[in-house]
Amino acid sequence: MAAVLIRSGREPVENWVAVFNKVLPDVECRIWPDVGDRADIEYVVANQLPDGQFATFPNLKLVAGTRVGLEGLLNDESLPPHIPILRNTDRERAATMTAWVLYQVIRHHRHFEEYAVNQRSKAWEHLKYRPPQETRVGIMGMGNLGTTVARALSGLMYRVAGWSRTRKDIPGIESFAGAAELEPFLARTDILISILPRTPETENVLDAGRFAMLPKGAYVINCGRGTTLDEDALLAALDSGHLSGAALDVFKVEPLPQDSSLWNHPKIAITPHYSCSGRAVFGAEGIVDAIRKLRRGEALTGTVDRSQGY
Amino acid sequence: MAAVLIRSGREPVENWVAVFNKVLPDVECRIWPDVGDRADIEYVVANQLPDGQFATFPNLKLVAGTRVGLEGLLNDESLPPHIPILRNTDRERAATMTAWVLYQVIRHHRHFEEYAVNQRSKAWEHLKYRPPQETRVGIMGMGNLGTTVARALSGLMYRVAGWSRTRKDIPGIESFAGAAELEPFLARTDILISILPRTPETENVLDAGRFAMLPKGAYVINCGRGTTLDEDALLAALDSGHLSGAALDVFKVEPLPQDSSLWNHPKIAITPHYSCSGRAVFGAEGIVDAIRKLRRGEALTGTVDRSQGY
Repeated sequence: MAAVLIRSGREPVENWVAVFNKVLPDVECRIWPDVGDRADIEYVVANQLPDGQFATFPNLKLVAGTRVGLEGLLNDESLPPHIPILRNTDRERAATMTAWVLYQVIRHHRHFEEYAVNQRSKAWEHLKYRPPQETRVGIMGMGNLGTTVARALSGLMYRVAGWSRTRKDIPGIESFAGAAELEPFLARTDILISILPRTPETENVLDAGRFAMLPKGAYVINCGRGTTLDEDALLAALDSGHLSGAALDVFKVEPLPQDSSLWNHPKIAITPHYSCSGRAVFGAEGIVDAIRKLRRGEALTGTVDRSQGY
Repeated sequence: MAAVLIRSGREPVENWVAVFNKVLPDVECRIWPDVGDRADIEYVVANQLPDGQFATFPNLKLVAGTRVGLEGLLNDESLPPHIPILRNTDRERAATMTAWVLYQVIRHHRHFEEYAVNQRSKAWEHLKYRPPQETRVGIMGMGNLGTTVARALSGLMYRVAGWSRTRKDIPGIESFAGAAELEPFLARTDILISILPRTPETENVLDAGRFAMLPKGAYVINCGRGTTLDEDALLAALDSGHLSGAALDVFKVEPLPQDSSLWNHPKIAITPHYSCSGRAVFGAEGIVDAIRKLRRGEALTGTVDRSQGY
């Protein structure tokens, strides 16, 4: 009998088992580390397994991540390159991350921090803001999450553009693609949202040079990976007055060290890598769909381009 | 020549004139108070005119409000009852109010205030929140604005219901209608959003009795009209611990008086009646459309039911 090996993240593993037993009754669930007969394991649901494990499953057909970041799988050399890695397309993750991003964009655009200060001094004063259609939001990373965020902001009439490896055709969203179009993308962006994954190419992509390409007064939001942003360069760009502020959910080192200058910076809002969350009931949807396609011999969608690292 | 009389609000009147001249060149624009020949005035764009004015336009066919609230028109007895009053369906207003509401809902649901406190003490701690699908949002007032807000929240996977005079059929939004269904609507609502207009029926509809119908820990958001909410009852429900907090954009008296207990209440977030804003370029869209329909003899949509007061 085909089996799925499950190593759950924060979510109790019983929740994953319940979903799989219900919708794929002919696939046996094995809960890590109780692997059983390794020849049975055709599918693995995990974000990482100890070194060398993947090479011990002779009939492995699919690996599915439980989180958004897939570094733990992509960096595992025991995972044969022909095995597809399924990206997490959990609707709940996309919805909760979109909510986190909307909060940060609206808080900045609509001056909510200043209103909180005004409330303390009982000041009834309208603070002007640019109309949303004249507020240029730019999203770096236009996968499932980036696209969901872009659509939500466009629905609020923000002027949204996306930057990604390949050009995207999404109604109402301007598309910039590739290294050559990064500068014009940044130059037209008042509020920058990075949802980039961790890859060798994205390491410090947001550095002093890129911050300088943003217009003066731009605001930076990072909920992708901490590796993508040069924290010292961000602090310098904030302190010089070139950037107006930043909202960060991810950091070079997590938990963010107590001695980091980010914690108490007056222009930085910090949350502890919690922008999105998802549960098995939604995470399993895409995995079940992929397993069914594999069995029918159909092509998979939503898998990682391993040559690109995401 | 048919003329439109324009009395602008905050928006410079030139912006209205520019739009009308461009899309309705055969309608002359008259800017209040330069009315000219009163027999020419077929359309009025205004939120209010001095007492008795409306009765002086013998060929009046349509009055269009420039803001969301229409009290200034509905309470004017010189405005003949057969003249249709066009409700403002400005897309920009709906978008900016939706953004204001999303900010308040997400701020409460995702514990952003607590995260700001944690940042000050450098605490890296995940604060649990109910999944959005288990977070029951209820919207009172399901007109254009309420419906737009409902759809946006539903897109973020919140469990959304609306309460309105008549039942609404909106996919994914549970509909409660009429006085009899107000109690079950409130009983299932964790986050209450009131976008109700000012009418005799909505006066203090949110009072001690209604707050008691909400589950313990519910959160109240008001961006409709200040007249709809009993401020003393709200304070009592917050202080008893029955309600967990409130976000208010509108008040019984505006500007909110300096001696109001709302200002410094730790569980209340205040903004100065600024949840939405719109401009002539969008506000004129619906008016132009209505004028064209009138000229073709077609039925108007988006007009006020004057027997109901909104």
